[in-house]
Amino acid sequence: MEQEDIFSSTDSQRGAFELPYAKYAVFENGMKLEQGGELPSLTICYETYGTLNERKDNAVFICHALTGDSHVARHTEDDSPGWWDILIGPGKSVDTNKYFVICPNILGGCRGTTGPDCINPQTGKPYGADFPMITIGDMVTAHMMLIDHLGIDKVLAVIGGSMGGMMVLDWAVNHKDRLCGAVLVASTTRSSAQAMAFDIVARNAITRDPEFRNGQYYDPGCPGPLDGLAIARMLGHLSYLSRESMTKKFDSTRNHGRDIETNFETRFSVGSYLAYQADKFNERFDANTYRVISMAIDLFDMGGTAEEIAQHIRNTTCRWMTMSFTSDWLFPADQMRELVSSLISCGKQVSFCNIESDCGHDAFLLPNQLSTYGSLIEHFLRNVRKSLAEPNDQRRIEQSVQARFNTRPDYPEILKLIPEGSTVLDLGCGNGELMEKLREKGAKRLMGIEMSERAVQACVAAGFDVVQGDLNKGLQPFNDKQFDYVVLSSTLQTITNVETVLEEMLRVGQKGIVTFPNAGYMPWREILYEEGRMPSFDPHEGSNWYTTTNTRFLTIRDFQEFCAKKGYRIVKQLALDTLKRCVVEHDCNRYANMAIVILTR
Amino acid sequence: MEQEDIFSSTDSQRGAFELPYAKYAVFENGMKLEQGGELPSLTICYETYGTLNERKDNAVFICHALTGDSHVARHTEDDSPGWWDILIGPGKSVDTNKYFVICPNILGGCRGTTGPDCINPQTGKPYGADFPMITIGDMVTAHMMLIDHLGIDKVLAVIGGSMGGMMVLDWAVNHKDRLCGAVLVASTTRSSAQAMAFDIVARNAITRDPEFRNGQYYDPGCPGPLDGLAIARMLGHLSYLSRESMTKKFDSTRNHGRDIETNFETRFSVGSYLAYQADKFNERFDANTYRVISMAIDLFDMGGTAEEIAQHIRNTTCRWMTMSFTSDWLFPADQMRELVSSLISCGKQVSFCNIESDCGHDAFLLPNQLSTYGSLIEHFLRNVRKSLAEPNDQRRIEQSVQARFNTRPDYPEILKLIPEGSTVLDLGCGNGELMEKLREKGAKRLMGIEMSERAVQACVAAGFDVVQGDLNKGLQPFNDKQFDYVVLSSTLQTITNVETVLEEMLRVGQKGIVTFPNAGYMPWREILYEEGRMPSFDPHEGSNWYTTTNTRFLTIRDFQEFCAKKGYRIVKQLALDTLKRCVVEHDCNRYANMAIVILTR
Repeated sequence: MEQEDIFSSTDSQRGAFELPYAKYAVFENGMKLEQGGELPSLTICYETYGTLNERKDNAVFICHALTGDSHVARHTEDDSPGWWDILIGPGKSVDTNKYFVICPNILGGCRGTTGPDCINPQTGKPYGADFPMITIGDMVTAHMMLIDHLGIDKVLAVIGGSMGGMMVLDWAVNHKDRLCGAVLVASTTRSSAQAMAFDIVARNAITRDPEFRNGQYYDPGCPGPLDGLAIARMLGHLSYLSRESMTKKFDSTRNHGRDIETNFETRFSVGSYLAYQADKFNERFDANTYRVISMAIDLFDMGGTAEEIAQHIRNTTCRWMTMSFTSDWLFPADQMRELVSSLISCGKQVSFCNIESDCGHDAFLLPNQLSTYGSLIEHFLRNVRKSLAEPNDQRRIEQSVQARFNTRPDYPEILKLIPEGSTVLDLGCGNGELMEKLREKGAKRLMGIEMSERAVQACVAAGFDVVQGDLNKGLQPFNDKQFDYVVLSSTLQTITNVETVLEEMLRVGQKGIVTFPNAGYMPWREILYEEGRMPSFDPHEGSNWYTTTNTRFLTIRDFQEFCAKKGYRIVKQLALDTLKRCVVEHDCNRYANMAIVILTR
Repeated sequence: MEQEDIFSSTDSQRGAFELPYAKYAVFENGMKLEQGGELPSLTICYETYGTLNERKDNAVFICHALTGDSHVARHTEDDSPGWWDILIGPGKSVDTNKYFVICPNILGGCRGTTGPDCINPQTGKPYGADFPMITIGDMVTAHMMLIDHLGIDKVLAVIGGSMGGMMVLDWAVNHKDRLCGAVLVASTTRSSAQAMAFDIVARNAITRDPEFRNGQYYDPGCPGPLDGLAIARMLGHLSYLSRESMTKKFDSTRNHGRDIETNFETRFSVGSYLAYQADKFNERFDANTYRVISMAIDLFDMGGTAEEIAQHIRNTTCRWMTMSFTSDWLFPADQMRELVSSLISCGKQVSFCNIESDCGHDAFLLPNQLSTYGSLIEHFLRNVRKSLAEPNDQRRIEQSVQARFNTRPDYPEILKLIPEGSTVLDLGCGNGELMEKLREKGAKRLMGIEMSERAVQACVAAGFDVVQGDLNKGLQPFNDKQFDYVVLSSTLQTITNVETVLEEMLRVGQKGIVTFPNAGYMPWREILYEEGRMPSFDPHEGSNWYTTTNTRFLTIRDFQEFCAKKGYRIVKQLALDTLKRCVVEHDCNRYANMAIVILTR
């Protein structure tokens, strides 16, 4: 049992099987390539799932990663599972009862689409090393030829993980009229030097294998660079797993390698796993394809910093859903955050979630975090589709969540303060309750920032754009005066960097709205003064000094003095006694337990 | 300039130079090996620095890492720099004016000590693949033969980084009478599956190179497995650097590989770097040595968890200094923490610092963090030496730090409460001021836990054992009732997990001493009650509600009620008015601004 277990991988069930449901689109005029070469003819192998509707607006296009193929999901119960079977199918997150799913093998691939192992019509022999250098952009150009061939003007969304996400970026940047939504999972705007180094060592291993024969190894009797490709595959596996997941998988059987027939070292369990995976890979993959595609990955460069990325994404028009995984060190969250920052600064509609996982880069193919990334993709597709149906009336979007009870007495007051048609950024937006009320009231544009993964999920499910992030780090990607209102409701008391957050909210918003429990409330003062006990200073938290999540305690007077010192102007101030459920008109610092303040700078 | 810069590495200046200062110890009877083989004869190449004193108690033994050699430092100004030149030399952290430094090339090496490239006296040919499998333990057995040869019974300390640290562990566990101090830098009790995978792929690259010829490649005309060793070296470099350091080094020149003569890919700057380093490595290193030594690393296993490690380190007698680097992902801090936890649970004298660095594993060879790790090593050596000189009187240790002004009014009271001869654990020990006073008073055993790297450094400089760690995670490695007193002085107000920390302190200590600012102090109550302002609740912090680092506010009454609820017994309670500098006898919750409480469970 245990021995079987260590050999499982996201890939291990996939051998050199046939693709019985594959279709082939042949383009006899070939295509020109970005780096200057051209292909005299082009065949694209692809599979489709579900039905294209009459309006042809339900297509979802899937871009696979380095070693994937067109077989993204099973077509029937008897069919072999696809590489994203857990995500795509009838009733699944990408529901093939609703959507028409298209997945091609990419240009340069070795699974049906034109690649180095195909016959070059100009020589009658396999391309081998003569296959021209291709780019991610070329792969996406081929995708365009395919959707043209299928008669689709614009797909609902393009979804890609890892290298697939790079293709999604290229769609959005260079073919902006052909997609409504862009979904990037565990991807990046460009590989880090570390990630490139893995690819480079892998290519060196392939090309220095004497059996590589300068890429012309397709003749009978030539085994091809099996050792080189095996080393490349071992390196790939290493970069796809996290240290934690490798420890879990191999440490208990550390010194007990499985006795398999292989040319590679099997002394340790992790070694026998790598050997096994490498040998299996050699049965189904082509070394030239590995080399050509990994080079396309390394050449891909939409910038490394938010500023550089902005040069590329400035004119995109799609809505974005971006996801990273906390233990992914190949395409880590920080790189995705640069893209997200860039999209924010350019005013695009974007959501981001850094999903907690110990599975490393491979997490996007595994069931472990499917409940999060599957749900985010499912709701994002629905959100994009809804906004197509009623593009000018975001208000009427169907409520995805149950009507929630009103736990927050400051919300009705905040709603009164924000005029219809405003743009609002909600800091610490929680499950999106305030945003929902603002949407009902007719807000023009809404966006939230929130720390909790579950809350981010709830917001996306409710139709909102939300970015997972820590307010204490500031709002750096946002532009000056990007929103009419920036709201910090019942969150100030949990903020570490108070000065940063308030400064930033007044930079990004025309106005800021802050609500907080007022520690000056007389019953609380009395608890301390008369009883010598510390009050909870929070009417709705009900916890005590040693368990409260509140860390900042202030009175209305303290806040007024703070604003005066900082030069913030208090435009309006409201005060509530939330226990008596009334507005406090006089001597607020004494009689109110909650303050609501509108500020400007 | 920039191009030169990206080619620098911790290793790049080292070619196949001669070792003019090397000495050779020849053991004609050879040695038996742990895995069953034996070497018919053994030569150890080593270098020494400084002078062995008459008592022969000033020897410091250095264990090198995978690709190091005996040349750890320069011998004269004209000499080539050694691999740890920044650390070792006259007036440096390991001061060769004070210490007699010994550094051998390890068993199996290719730089003078018997290894696979040496002549097997039984065949008259190089060992090649016939070189027996060796272990870290064998390497250390050879070290013992060398110190015997030098007439040294016991070295002051053994210092090792990376694999060198594994040798230090073996010294401490299997030769405990031969060392007083053990210093591990960027090392581990065993490699993670991830780290092993790097080694395994490297060995596969070497052994599958056709020029490996089953390890017998020393004949004239045989180039040896240059490609395989190059791939191994590239992988090594990848694992030694952090993503951050690679980005810094290569990203600005990302697409501008340097045009060097090499068989490897140079298109990208990181690729030309890897090619350059690999080619240089081939000039000075032997593939069989790489294979044999990296296998010894992977075979090394002193356990992965604190419990497993305890089986090995239980009977060690040395004092320990352990260090990791925050961005080291090859031998990461969490693995070092398991060793530290194990040492703590076995009651050993240990210090630990996780040094902030973005340089990855290589940090231990670089100048960037030398001011920290060099200082820790320097003071640790001095501490070990002092305790040798006056083993039974820790008090008289020379004060390394300036006498500090007394900023903390609770200290004199705490001192009165702790009897002479007690063992004390100080939680949040800062610079060690309280520990210093307790040492002066004659405490039997002192230890501190502290978050700040600088404070940890100051404590080690003052002669103390201190472990860097976050109290909120509890005191898990400590045993029940391991100390007479556990002190939490003026720290409770910054703790997030109050219940955990207090529960743990009373588990680990016979008694706990807690001091905290008393929010019940009447002048503070009055500020809130009469002025409607939040007081600072801290007599000595002087900050306000939005900048204070305090997050927990409580009165003496609150604390008493908390203790009653938890079943903690208050053995004694003192209260101070630190502004009036007096002890408060009556109505403490009203008149004292600081409380000092002794608790038991």
